[in-house]
Amino acid sequence: MKHLSILGSTGSIGTQTLEIIRKFPDKFKIVGLTANSNAELLLKQIKEFKPKAAAILNESKADGLLNFSSCQIFRGKEGINKIAALDEADTIVNSLVGSAGIEPTYNAIQHKKNIALANKETLVAAGSIIMDEVKKNNVTLMPIDSEHSAIFQCLNGEKISEVNKITITCSGGPFKNLTKGQLQNVMLKDALNHPTWSMGNKITIDSSTLMNKGFEIIEAHWLYNIPYEKIEVVIHPQSIIHSLVEFADKSVIAQLGMPDMRIPIQYALTYPERIANDNQQLDIAKAGKLEFREPDFEMFPCLRYAYDAGKTGGTLPCVMNAANEIVVQAFLEEKIKYLDIARIIKQKMDSHDLIRNPTLKDILEVDKKTKEDLQKIFPNSK
Amino acid sequence: MKHLSILGSTGSIGTQTLEIIRKFPDKFKIVGLTANSNAELLLKQIKEFKPKAAAILNESKADGLLNFSSCQIFRGKEGINKIAALDEADTIVNSLVGSAGIEPTYNAIQHKKNIALANKETLVAAGSIIMDEVKKNNVTLMPIDSEHSAIFQCLNGEKISEVNKITITCSGGPFKNLTKGQLQNVMLKDALNHPTWSMGNKITIDSSTLMNKGFEIIEAHWLYNIPYEKIEVVIHPQSIIHSLVEFADKSVIAQLGMPDMRIPIQYALTYPERIANDNQQLDIAKAGKLEFREPDFEMFPCLRYAYDAGKTGGTLPCVMNAANEIVVQAFLEEKIKYLDIARIIKQKMDSHDLIRNPTLKDILEVDKKTKEDLQKIFPNSK
Repeated sequence: MKHLSILGSTGSIGTQTLEIIRKFPDKFKIVGLTANSNAELLLKQIKEFKPKAAAILNESKADGLLNFSSCQIFRGKEGINKIAALDEADTIVNSLVGSAGIEPTYNAIQHKKNIALANKETLVAAGSIIMDEVKKNNVTLMPIDSEHSAIFQCLNGEKISEVNKITITCSGGPFKNLTKGQLQNVMLKDALNHPTWSMGNKITIDSSTLMNKGFEIIEAHWLYNIPYEKIEVVIHPQSIIHSLVEFADKSVIAQLGMPDMRIPIQYALTYPERIANDNQQLDIAKAGKLEFREPDFEMFPCLRYAYDAGKTGGTLPCVMNAANEIVVQAFLEEKIKYLDIARIIKQKMDSHDLIRNPTLKDILEVDKKTKEDLQKIFPNSK
Repeated sequence: MKHLSILGSTGSIGTQTLEIIRKFPDKFKIVGLTANSNAELLLKQIKEFKPKAAAILNESKADGLLNFSSCQIFRGKEGINKIAALDEADTIVNSLVGSAGIEPTYNAIQHKKNIALANKETLVAAGSIIMDEVKKNNVTLMPIDSEHSAIFQCLNGEKISEVNKITITCSGGPFKNLTKGQLQNVMLKDALNHPTWSMGNKITIDSSTLMNKGFEIIEAHWLYNIPYEKIEVVIHPQSIIHSLVEFADKSVIAQLGMPDMRIPIQYALTYPERIANDNQQLDIAKAGKLEFREPDFEMFPCLRYAYDAGKTGGTLPCVMNAANEIVVQAFLEEKIKYLDIARIIKQKMDSHDLIRNPTLKDILEVDKKTKEDLQKIFPNSK
């Protein structure tokens, strides 16, 4: 039986993870849960799954939990870190949003926890440091992202040294068929209307700008130790093929399935076992048609910025990620227009003083400073 | 270094196998070659690859070889069997056509040779016996068929017990868009014009009737020990996805590539290594669109006959295969019309006295008798 803590249990990945746990009560025990500010849902989860401890980031919300729950309640950033390091857990599901995921991941690894990682920003901003710690502490880091889960599955029984190329598929988001002129005037509600995946707000906007795909390139680089030259992106509107790996002999392996995050979440939790579930089967004859085309780097410059940041390395991906978090929040709060997202990220990347071999402290400081600088322009944006 | 004999070295798979051998002279040594009747090409191959021995089925062609070659020359069926059992070979590539492949495969296994099998009729007619011998003699049997190579690759690192379903893709052949009325009048040259794969004549006709796909269902059943209920066929005109495997968790793994037999041939020869080659890369963005639809069992009844034969088992698949060989030859000789192929096969299947648990001798006798009976109607058809 696996003993899990879920960081971000009230979000999209967190609730879907609990949906899976609910189905396999003999395989998993929840020992810790954390939420950002949704105390009501967290309390319901505590009552149902009876963890040893829980934490809520928004400290003012903690009191309500204390009155109703028999489990230990922690507060704030420190509270999240405590849940990441609970003695009773062997595996941490990190489904936090943004660079807030970095420190808990690092702490969990230091405490020899295996990681199931949905928080891609951890690897984008601190990939080198995290992967070093994974090796040093001899823990496993399983991706929850559908694309990286796909790549992991394609590599089953294969040798990384025989990989020619990784192709990450991308739905193209809601704006894949717009002109640059049309892109200027898109509204928040359009950007939140993802064609194939139902996800949280931040990742939905990141998907519309293709920054999410840019993050995934960097994530793939770190997870599979593959140079950026061997990682490519292809637009695939149906989101049925989740990624492909080409090998030395020109044979290609792909993972497919319905666009349903419960498949990669379950895989990350049960690997190396595959367990029967009641998720929808892929009926490829019914799907009928799978389309592919090259991404447009002009229309979606964030994808190019991510390649640039990844190849440059150091603190540049961290700055890109931090800037993205603030401007996406500003867009969600309708303080900026859609094309401002890429423009401001580019400005922050261009003006950044690169640290080539950053420590974790450097990363956290650059993250904080980038966010603070932008928050001066967009006050109250988290 | 692997020591190979190729049965059927002058055919389509044989010559492509030698093309690969030529590229990796440090990995493979040819010790035996066989041809049906193309003495001229066999002699060229003998001169280039310097095998220890060679055989030609058509005995009258052997004399020309004896004069020109320093290697030992065998003749007739016995000669082919000798090459299948040569001491110096560790691996036999069986690219014979039709049930002629059964005995040499059996002999090779008895002599502890590993098998790279392109001759699917061996498993169609004698799957149970051959797979028993593979186990008993502790040899490996690698499929060369693109579909079965795909399935093998999808199963890398996975457990057969976790397989939900195998989906074998099918180009649909040249007649996939015809009506039943149009099918009545198709000509030999139309049937020989395969849209995606360049192959020998017999398999090209089998592809047009979907009998080839039917054979592949039976082959997959034996190779992977999967019940027929878990094997399905999907029409995929582009022949880019070569097959798919769905697992218990609804995750699907597929193998893709350009339609190029050199990829599965090389894989069968070098497994578990994948070796770089100059074959064309799959550019999925350039491919643009992959289409899928259900096969039409009404239009292509041979596919249904194969399911029926496979599920019934015993000698029924053997009869189906033997009848198919003769009527396809008769069609190639323009003695019958296209729709007669399926009609006559069905007649022979319906009138067959089933042997439930046949020995190899039973299989060979049923094969011979079925062919002789039909040859009375179509004299000179091989």
